[in-house]
Amino acid sequence: MSSLFTNISEVVTPTLGAKRGRAMRDLTVTRDAAMLVEGGRVVWIGARKDAPIGHAERDLGGVAVVPGLVDPHTHLVWAGNRLADFEARTSGVTYEEILRRGGGIRSTAAATRAASEEALVASSRPRLTALAASGATTIEIKSGYALDVDGELKMLRAIGALRDSSRVTVTPTLLLHVPQGDRSAYLRDVCEPLVEIAAREGLAEAVDVFCEREAFTVEETARLFDAARRAGLRVKLHADQFHAIGGTKLACDARASSVDHLEASGSAEIRLLAESSTVATILPGVSLHLGLPSAPGRALVDAGAVVAVGTDANPGSSPLLSAPLALALAVRLNGLTPSEALTAGTVNAAAALDLHDRGALAPGCKADFLALRSDDWRDLVYILGASPVRDVFVNGEVLEADV
Amino acid sequence: MSSLFTNISEVVTPTLGAKRGRAMRDLTVTRDAAMLVEGGRVVWIGARKDAPIGHAERDLGGVAVVPGLVDPHTHLVWAGNRLADFEARTSGVTYEEILRRGGGIRSTAAATRAASEEALVASSRPRLTALAASGATTIEIKSGYALDVDGELKMLRAIGALRDSSRVTVTPTLLLHVPQGDRSAYLRDVCEPLVEIAAREGLAEAVDVFCEREAFTVEETARLFDAARRAGLRVKLHADQFHAIGGTKLACDARASSVDHLEASGSAEIRLLAESSTVATILPGVSLHLGLPSAPGRALVDAGAVVAVGTDANPGSSPLLSAPLALALAVRLNGLTPSEALTAGTVNAAAALDLHDRGALAPGCKADFLALRSDDWRDLVYILGASPVRDVFVNGEVLEADV
Ligand SMILES: [Zn+2]
Ligand SMILES: [Zn+2]
Repeated sequence: MSSLFTNISEVVTPTLGAKRGRAMRDLTVTRDAAMLVEGGRVVWIGARKDAPIGHAERDLGGVAVVPGLVDPHTHLVWAGNRLADFEARTSGVTYEEILRRGGGIRSTAAATRAASEEALVASSRPRLTALAASGATTIEIKSGYALDVDGELKMLRAIGALRDSSRVTVTPTLLLHVPQGDRSAYLRDVCEPLVEIAAREGLAEAVDVFCEREAFTVEETARLFDAARRAGLRVKLHADQFHAIGGTKLACDARASSVDHLEASGSAEIRLLAESSTVATILPGVSLHLGLPSAPGRALVDAGAVVAVGTDANPGSSPLLSAPLALALAVRLNGLTPSEALTAGTVNAAAALDLHDRGALAPGCKADFLALRSDDWRDLVYILGASPVRDVFVNGEVLEADV
Repeated sequence: MSSLFTNISEVVTPTLGAKRGRAMRDLTVTRDAAMLVEGGRVVWIGARKDAPIGHAERDLGGVAVVPGLVDPHTHLVWAGNRLADFEARTSGVTYEEILRRGGGIRSTAAATRAASEEALVASSRPRLTALAASGATTIEIKSGYALDVDGELKMLRAIGALRDSSRVTVTPTLLLHVPQGDRSAYLRDVCEPLVEIAAREGLAEAVDVFCEREAFTVEETARLFDAARRAGLRVKLHADQFHAIGGTKLACDARASSVDHLEASGSAEIRLLAESSTVATILPGVSLHLGLPSAPGRALVDAGAVVAVGTDANPGSSPLLSAPLALALAVRLNGLTPSEALTAGTVNAAAALDLHDRGALAPGCKADFLALRSDDWRDLVYILGASPVRDVFVNGEVLEADV
């Protein structure tokens, strides 16, 4: 089964660079293009006039085509909501007071523990649908709101159910979020068993740790990384969100897939990331939503780090359900150029998930792509608030609104 | 013809306040509600159990209902695009250099002058459709990109054509944007004739002037306000965007409908607005897009000014095509609470357009309202990037996607 997509103003894809197969900002642009897809893969891209003959044609109406976006960092599965917290915070109530009232992550944890797996799937599916409809064809989803063994496994099973019933790719991550009670007992009785069970039952592809003053220390993170490695799982890290306490160095030394957040990264952390094979994932939705400083995206790219962008979609600190808007914000808040933002939201974000068959459009790549509403791909990161994406294609077939 | 809308989790509307019929932040919430609409007007709102009988029922599925949003400040009609400028600016090129390359407002003016009225309507209609679909049921559109008599009249006619073919309310404004050539000749030969013709031919409801160091002086603005008053048109002002040169005082003294932008307003301007009947319209899309300081929304509300929020949708400084996102940004960037943002995007924005039959849901109001995707109205300003609006109703009838 083959399809020749025609009437494309331009096919725009990151140019794969020399640095470990990842990309910085160079784009390959094919104008007046056609693209041949067979078996869910791209097999040919070129000028329309040079297109191979004998294939069913699908006219894309003269718009631009870019790779499907990859969202490498979400917390899409949760129960309850944080709207009362939002109203309180924007009315001047401190986070400490919100916590005292039972809000913050505690309220999400309580609601998530109380919800059944089916309820979690039902409440999360519209969010996955919205993010996919925005143009994200590969989406990472983390656990991390239950904070106990049974609840985290329930979250991972809910993520697995979403993965199994969605045409977009969902990659599950076990997030070890905030230690509870006696720390060493929590590591021994909750975290390490979770890593072991998640690996054995195929419930997670990676282990993520929140390394921060209020969460896991660098030493605890190192111990959890060791457990993940023993179990055969990739590792990644929430680090430098509020304080640079050493997580980025640990992650780079451990060849983590990515270090995410980086708002508090300084020149030392930027240099470490630039010299490493670890992707630097920035999350501009948090900066917009909470009014906190933005990660040094410009400096990271300039130093030579491989930068990715994620939505960090979550109920408390980033209620952002659009992958193109995350890229648009990375241009405004983190100083990326449009080309760098496209690269960060495609091939680099895929690299952060250890996926090397997507995030670009070239022969052999998975035929996940977006037909925009414009003949100029830059509208993808220019328009704010309206969708720049007309159609989302997964494996060469259009994604209906229900994913 | 009457319809009883039922199965509404809550009808939420600004409470009309003491200050000249405008509102600050108090909301009236009716839970488990029903709303009766007859002849395109709301005639009754109350608890479902108290609803009048004998009317056709329309089940809204348990979601929250808020008034249709009012966007009191857009430049939705233009030709060409500024994508090359955007790429240059985000790559570090200065605005002066962009102007030297023929970019900036000059490129929009050249393309808009060259376009036919029909071409302007065709290129602008998808933007109007997007903004209406986002939840804006009343939308102001300004001229101001042609900068000569024939071109400005063509823009106003294009706005009129959009108004006449749309179910949402479109209010046309003549914007006197930037003086060209000899200033006093430009006022005499371009601006004053434009005001006179626009009024005589019913092409504009208001005259807006861009009062800024690089545009019209306070004295020139006063002269243009006089011309507008003589012609029977309301006046409004772009002021304090980069420098507070006195426009706000002039506008308050002249009882202008609104003063818009205000990023550079200080305590003197805030006090003037608080003591006046002039609406203070803030435009957070510009702050996000250009990375410039935000208008002092929090201080304006605290001082007692009537604050409205607009998208300022335009090709160069605010490519924002969502009224709910404008409100969501006003919470994040200008310090408004969710309640203040809803008030600013409804009844206060309507007051800025001298419209007093909308922006609230109460007997007698125009039945323009939004059925959200959530049973909690606060999702309207919480969610970023996905539409919080499921259905847009104009005069009690659902707006189809083609407006
Ligand atoms: Zn996160
Ligand atoms: Zn404006």
